[in-house]
Amino acid sequence: MRELFQADMKSLGDQLVEIAGLVHEAMSQARDAFENADVELAEAVITNDARIDYLQTALDEKAIELLALQGPVAADLRTVVAALRMSSSLERMGDLARHIAQLARRRFPDLVVPELAREDFRQMADHAVTVSGEVEQLLTTRDLQHASTIAKLNASINELHAKNFATVSLPEWNAPAATAVDVALASRFLERFADHGVSVARKVTYLMTGEWEPVIAAD
Amino acid sequence: MRELFQADMKSLGDQLVEIAGLVHEAMSQARDAFENADVELAEAVITNDARIDYLQTALDEKAIELLALQGPVAADLRTVVAALRMSSSLERMGDLARHIAQLARRRFPDLVVPELAREDFRQMADHAVTVSGEVEQLLTTRDLQHASTIAKLNASINELHAKNFATVSLPEWNAPAATAVDVALASRFLERFADHGVSVARKVTYLMTGEWEPVIAAD
Repeated sequence: MRELFQADMKSLGDQLVEIAGLVHEAMSQARDAFENADVELAEAVITNDARIDYLQTALDEKAIELLALQGPVAADLRTVVAALRMSSSLERMGDLARHIAQLARRRFPDLVVPELAREDFRQMADHAVTVSGEVEQLLTTRDLQHASTIAKLNASINELHAKNFATVSLPEWNAPAATAVDVALASRFLERFADHGVSVARKVTYLMTGEWEPVIAAD
Repeated sequence: MRELFQADMKSLGDQLVEIAGLVHEAMSQARDAFENADVELAEAVITNDARIDYLQTALDEKAIELLALQGPVAADLRTVVAALRMSSSLERMGDLARHIAQLARRRFPDLVVPELAREDFRQMADHAVTVSGEVEQLLTTRDLQHASTIAKLNASINELHAKNFATVSLPEWNAPAATAVDVALASRFLERFADHGVSVARKVTYLMTGEWEPVIAAD
């Protein structure tokens, strides 16, 4: 029974890693589609999101089955409940990558972001891709150094998010109002994507240490 | 043991209703603050959100304790897991009401939305308030008529959300880009608020019927 339980717990962890890998791939492709107005790649991200949704549902069913059949307690129970929460965060990250791809598709053949904000968006999207890569690594290795990296990337993304709003108010900003709307939404999607990454990092940190906050190395 | 279990399950349901009541109050006040540039009311919504967050954490702890001590199975287990999910949706709804209040505070003493879009926003915010009232009623009574109402309100909100984006592109739109950004964000917050309401409605519907989709009356 105990061996079966350990195998089930491991399989739950593997499923989380698999979803995180797809989310990382989705954001990586969404960034490329967004920056290069690549409508085929955008379509691929949009289509592939269904796979993430399917795997989340499968993971949730597995977790509920594990709760029903094995009645875990203490740390094991918290791990299963955390897996349910993390699968939900990962599924939202997949949705947000899809939203970025949808913006790229909607503005094709134009780019979504005008020249004035493009460099900040490039950094922001790179950080978002790195966040999802770090989430995948964190779930694979449980090395909390990745949680710390995610927290730092999130702080940078929040700064860039605020900066994007300031950019729209600059006298040099001369794009149509609809472009300002797209910029606001894209910035919000990337910011939320990172928030969900932090949420996963906090749950892993809590499971490993009993503390909620990832330690951010002072550098 | 069974009686204790039933009492715990009832208490979990009561806690959800309490949080839903606070979310309804928060969105109702956020709407008023947003439409009247009432900065004190906006501050109240922002401050009171901490209470919703606290109650969500308390509910989650209760649910985990119930899983650990009572090991529910079958329908009871699904109800507890659904309660964890619904508390998470309600907490996000509280955050989104807070975001609406924060926009009102940021633009005070101006109104966030320019005249051209104000009537659509008035309807959208009223619908959002009604969604949260219906969520509270649904959780109180388990009468699926409320789930159907929530689905209909959400469809209207989605239409108004799309209309807001079209409004920003009209030739009559002459507000600064920063206003377009605020309008985009406010519209997105209301749309997401309703999405979370639908998410709660779907979970209650599933628990009551085994089906995922709330039935929308043909009218």
